[in-house]
Amino acid sequence: MQPFLPVYAPLSDQQIKHIEDMADQVLAEVGVILQDDPISHEAMAAVGARIESDKVFTKGDDLRALIAQAPRQFTWYGQSPECDVVIGEKPLYAPTYGPPVVETHDENRHQATMADYEALVLLCDRSELLGTTGSLLTIPHDVPEEARPIAMARAHLEHSKKPMCGSIISEQALRDVAHEVGTDPSKCHLMHMINTTPPLVIQPNPLRCLRAAVELGQGNMVASYMMMGATAPVSIMGALAQGLAEIMVGLALTQIYRPGAPVVGGLFATPFEMQQMGPMFGSPQSQLVQIAGAQLVRRLGVPCRGDGMLSSSKLNDAQAGYEGAITLAASQLCQADFILHSIGWSEFGRSYNFDKCLADEALILSSI
Amino acid sequence: MQPFLPVYAPLSDQQIKHIEDMADQVLAEVGVILQDDPISHEAMAAVGARIESDKVFTKGDDLRALIAQAPRQFTWYGQSPECDVVIGEKPLYAPTYGPPVVETHDENRHQATMADYEALVLLCDRSELLGTTGSLLTIPHDVPEEARPIAMARAHLEHSKKPMCGSIISEQALRDVAHEVGTDPSKCHLMHMINTTPPLVIQPNPLRCLRAAVELGQGNMVASYMMMGATAPVSIMGALAQGLAEIMVGLALTQIYRPGAPVVGGLFATPFEMQQMGPMFGSPQSQLVQIAGAQLVRRLGVPCRGDGMLSSSKLNDAQAGYEGAITLAASQLCQADFILHSIGWSEFGRSYNFDKCLADEALILSSI
Repeated sequence: MQPFLPVYAPLSDQQIKHIEDMADQVLAEVGVILQDDPISHEAMAAVGARIESDKVFTKGDDLRALIAQAPRQFTWYGQSPECDVVIGEKPLYAPTYGPPVVETHDENRHQATMADYEALVLLCDRSELLGTTGSLLTIPHDVPEEARPIAMARAHLEHSKKPMCGSIISEQALRDVAHEVGTDPSKCHLMHMINTTPPLVIQPNPLRCLRAAVELGQGNMVASYMMMGATAPVSIMGALAQGLAEIMVGLALTQIYRPGAPVVGGLFATPFEMQQMGPMFGSPQSQLVQIAGAQLVRRLGVPCRGDGMLSSSKLNDAQAGYEGAITLAASQLCQADFILHSIGWSEFGRSYNFDKCLADEALILSSI
Repeated sequence: MQPFLPVYAPLSDQQIKHIEDMADQVLAEVGVILQDDPISHEAMAAVGARIESDKVFTKGDDLRALIAQAPRQFTWYGQSPECDVVIGEKPLYAPTYGPPVVETHDENRHQATMADYEALVLLCDRSELLGTTGSLLTIPHDVPEEARPIAMARAHLEHSKKPMCGSIISEQALRDVAHEVGTDPSKCHLMHMINTTPPLVIQPNPLRCLRAAVELGQGNMVASYMMMGATAPVSIMGALAQGLAEIMVGLALTQIYRPGAPVVGGLFATPFEMQQMGPMFGSPQSQLVQIAGAQLVRRLGVPCRGDGMLSSSKLNDAQAGYEGAITLAASQLCQADFILHSIGWSEFGRSYNFDKCLADEALILSSI
């Protein structure tokens, strides 16, 4: 679509100012909780933040000045130079992250095993679309829990030379995987998925993982995934302001620990469905947050995350197609730099559907 | 989506000039065939066109000056004032037009009957989404062919007060339906679907119907539906130029017959799939033509057509959802004024699927 379509950035200057002012007010007056992590508190205090218990009050512009040190583009290294990718140059498609269940071609839906994990790594490796094999593609239930991070990392290393993500199960797992991969501190080999916990919290484990990743010279993706009406305001403008405040703190921490550390920012939200008490993926509201969120994240000077063929359907049916298409369309229109959960997402993200992987991939390839 | 999203109009001034210049060159040097209709030839000659056999050579700017007399907005009258709609004010959703086959809820797929036709009119009438009951919703095969236009018109009049479309089966049928409806020449009660026959032809029947509609004070939608690679250049820029040339002639004719006559313009294209020798609905190429086409049509000063949940699938499956979503998204992003085939389209437009009607409607309502 490149020749016709410039980046779609529909927020007006006034709308941007309104959201950024709200985020600044949240940062200054409400604060963001950096949970149970004194090193984060000291780091923020050292750049002028006020700390009360584990709540951090800070100025938006102070954080913006810190984040401005992050690169707009950076190389994500694979195991072989021809597999390296540049994040921030053109949209990078990444596989789905995290489903515990897989559905294989014979409609055998089951808790995943290491064999499934390896099959998914191979699928990502062979994909013409995906620039990375990601990580935590599913959960290999037949491997003891403490051995999984290394077992998964080995599967990526054995079956692919594309760039991969690190583990954020724990700081120790993150360091173990980096060691297994043999990361070079001057090169970003591993990206780490650091999520805030809305509203306005970052939990201890992500805080430690973010810091460890930076110390090892590796990359982070700092994202807020909000459920509007539950963990964020039900209004889109409000959710954007809250999420922006959250990720600004996380992004700034990376730059306090090491100016220039590679980082991606993301704002994602779904409406919270009160009847089923759960998020609804693939809604027009998520599109608006995606499109506006990309504009806000880009203003911070870092690459931005998008999402792929998300849906709330349990099957790869018309609903999955429709919801996936509108989620993906939003990411493509705003030309998100790092499109997570591109293909295979099913059952609200609980299941990795192999057939849907192939179908989604064919659809996306036809559109780029 | 209104608060965030301005009209998406990504073509640059340079791209617009390039396409318009190409269209002008086509109009001046290649010509458009107005097939076997001397009155059209005389009308075009009277405004300075050169006629060779039934081919018309003309200047783009002459046509633009004529088309500029058409209204940017006009009222489409229903059978009751509360059902009137303003075309050009906000997107108007219209039902699918033309499928010969219906699929009812019990998956009974069959050649349609008058009972099916009436059921579809009722469905359109009760719809929260649709502003019109359209016309030729399907083909009532149990009614003799010559009696169908009046029978269909009566079904619309009996079961709904929403605005409806006229017949373009023949000039006589058009006049008969207008008489049945009791049209007032000062009010647009009936819109007529006038399609060109790419490449660069308008056939005798649409030429006569267009003229009869204008004479009766009724409205036309002049659209080019191109198959790129078969009836139009395979390149999007080329197809846009060809289609623009075609509809400019049709739009200008309406204004020659009566300055100020209400008219909508449309540019629509699908890639032509060489293996199956048919059009592929729901492709990204169609999106690009839609979005760019709306920008070009709006520059002529008339409302523009969009398309709804089109797809190439025979079922309401993931493909239908995905393809429908991207087709609709394009129409919504460019804020098309008149969105035809909004809901229920199936099997390349051969079938009206009742269940899909309801599913499509729910999806569209969730997005507006």
